[in-house]
Amino acid sequence: MMATATNKQVVLKGYVDGTPKETDLELKQSILSSLTAPEGSSALLVKNLFLSCDPYMFRRMRQFYGSYIPPFVPGQPIEGFGVARVIDSDDPEFQPGDLISGTTRWEEYSLIRKHEQLRKIDPQLDVPLSYHLGLLGMPGFTAHAGFYEVCSPRKGETVLVSAASGAVGQLVGQLARLHGCYVVGSAGSSKKVDLLKNKLKFDEAFNYKDERDLNAALKRYFPQGIDIYFDNVGGEMLDAALLNMRMNGRIAVCGMVSQHGHSDPRGIHNLYNLISKRVKMQGFLQSDYLNLFPKFVDHVVDHYRKGNITYIEDLSEGLESAPAAFIGLLSGKNVGKQVICVARE
Amino acid sequence: MMATATNKQVVLKGYVDGTPKETDLELKQSILSSLTAPEGSSALLVKNLFLSCDPYMFRRMRQFYGSYIPPFVPGQPIEGFGVARVIDSDDPEFQPGDLISGTTRWEEYSLIRKHEQLRKIDPQLDVPLSYHLGLLGMPGFTAHAGFYEVCSPRKGETVLVSAASGAVGQLVGQLARLHGCYVVGSAGSSKKVDLLKNKLKFDEAFNYKDERDLNAALKRYFPQGIDIYFDNVGGEMLDAALLNMRMNGRIAVCGMVSQHGHSDPRGIHNLYNLISKRVKMQGFLQSDYLNLFPKFVDHVVDHYRKGNITYIEDLSEGLESAPAAFIGLLSGKNVGKQVICVARE
Repeated sequence: MMATATNKQVVLKGYVDGTPKETDLELKQSILSSLTAPEGSSALLVKNLFLSCDPYMFRRMRQFYGSYIPPFVPGQPIEGFGVARVIDSDDPEFQPGDLISGTTRWEEYSLIRKHEQLRKIDPQLDVPLSYHLGLLGMPGFTAHAGFYEVCSPRKGETVLVSAASGAVGQLVGQLARLHGCYVVGSAGSSKKVDLLKNKLKFDEAFNYKDERDLNAALKRYFPQGIDIYFDNVGGEMLDAALLNMRMNGRIAVCGMVSQHGHSDPRGIHNLYNLISKRVKMQGFLQSDYLNLFPKFVDHVVDHYRKGNITYIEDLSEGLESAPAAFIGLLSGKNVGKQVICVARE
Repeated sequence: MMATATNKQVVLKGYVDGTPKETDLELKQSILSSLTAPEGSSALLVKNLFLSCDPYMFRRMRQFYGSYIPPFVPGQPIEGFGVARVIDSDDPEFQPGDLISGTTRWEEYSLIRKHEQLRKIDPQLDVPLSYHLGLLGMPGFTAHAGFYEVCSPRKGETVLVSAASGAVGQLVGQLARLHGCYVVGSAGSSKKVDLLKNKLKFDEAFNYKDERDLNAALKRYFPQGIDIYFDNVGGEMLDAALLNMRMNGRIAVCGMVSQHGHSDPRGIHNLYNLISKRVKMQGFLQSDYLNLFPKFVDHVVDHYRKGNITYIEDLSEGLESAPAAFIGLLSGKNVGKQVICVARE
């Protein structure tokens, strides 16, 4: 006789048209007939510990198939990156008790299959487990790949980072500082600005909501212009940055959270500066650089152990808190990387 | 006693705010005290033969110093590329009778100094003199540098060229065909479309003014998407191209004649596709690649002699015709590269 288990889930009610709301998600309880990975399935039955809230996920709430990732399935728990413990395994590479990070679902227990980004967590690493969703996870690797591979930084260059205290931005800024760059972060509250300047060691930071004229703000912080803009937001900040790029500047287009996958309602008006300043603007996804992942982990863990890098998380307790925490990303309620703690072990 | 000479000139009346008009330029007659290059001036006194009308010149009609080239000086003849014959020289590298191409002024006779792009024309080349303003001049070299250096083309890739029958576009398309690419050109009249298909050997061409939905038009010509967009116009065509780029596509941002240096009034809305398709978008100027100029001349002259490349010019007779010919560029009145013939020899 197999033991059944209840399984709380966060489910997408239906596809979203406008701005996603908390009520587009609902908590459900389902029943698992057993906590086992079926024989022949090559799958893992895992207990989810930490779940990641990431802006790209908003696009999956819309019925749009033209993106690099298909939409969520209504009525099903949503998918996302997570850290989990293997309970049962039909894959010989994984054993019960193993800790893994990779794509899982927003529920207590998931049956998952091996995939490109599913990794066994090395217990020797000795970093907080949740960091595998941020500093050592997809956002951290996005920062690493984007900064080193797309921005081609040189010592002494000037760097602007938007959404600078977010999951990606905070690491970009710290890597840039360690590389010998001058780094300015933009964020949406005085608390975040304070963290950027005092905890994350950015050279300067400002609250874009306090600036009536973003162009003037950028001229103040970059009197000689911007060599590298690591763009996490698109929209008006991108337009203002275009006006302030230096000759041969680079723009890494990493996210457009201000548009969350919709076309930009306001439009970008200053692309002409790409010509006059010979600027390269490049979109990228971390998944194209996975061969660099081991190097990234070594590099970041080394700096973390030496105290050169810190990482700020916004930890939300319990699956019940997940919808509010996730939707809060849209308005920047989170301070640092937003993570849901489903269970501690 | 030195002979004086009259010198007809095309002069900028004053800085322009909105769209440049023919009446912003005027014909003047000045007097040259002599047709000589003053001793110690290191200058050349030249007789201008052909003058080039190029879209970048519109920006120089505005009082704007943020571009890569300063504004024209009101009351003075405007500057531009030209082909001229040396009448007198105080520079030992040039002799009376030499033919040169480079920056000169819109007048019958100019006193010019050696500069980066001033070149002696090799009479052995045996191509029409005016071609040194187009096929073998700045526009041709823009096509060459942009296509080979910025677009990194591979055989079999799909290429969209806007303003495709223009001074730059017609060569881009022909180079792309010779490189083994599939090339579609967009232009603004049925006559130009006909030239693209039948004379310039593009695979396909369409009149963008006949298309109510540019996105649908591009989907028709590029069912598999666009690898390379050589953008000479910006605006709506760029926005539609962004929706149709293929994975790892490249956009060479060469000109935004639709905006002639003003910020885009409509705005670009589809930059999100840079991320999902990992597209590189790069602004460039030919002047950054001048070390490749000799290679370019060899390459293009070789193809021209073999009959692999043709070049369409729109030749306008006399300095009197210059203001109308120049302003006509803005509405695409020219068919092919617009040149003013000031004198035949």
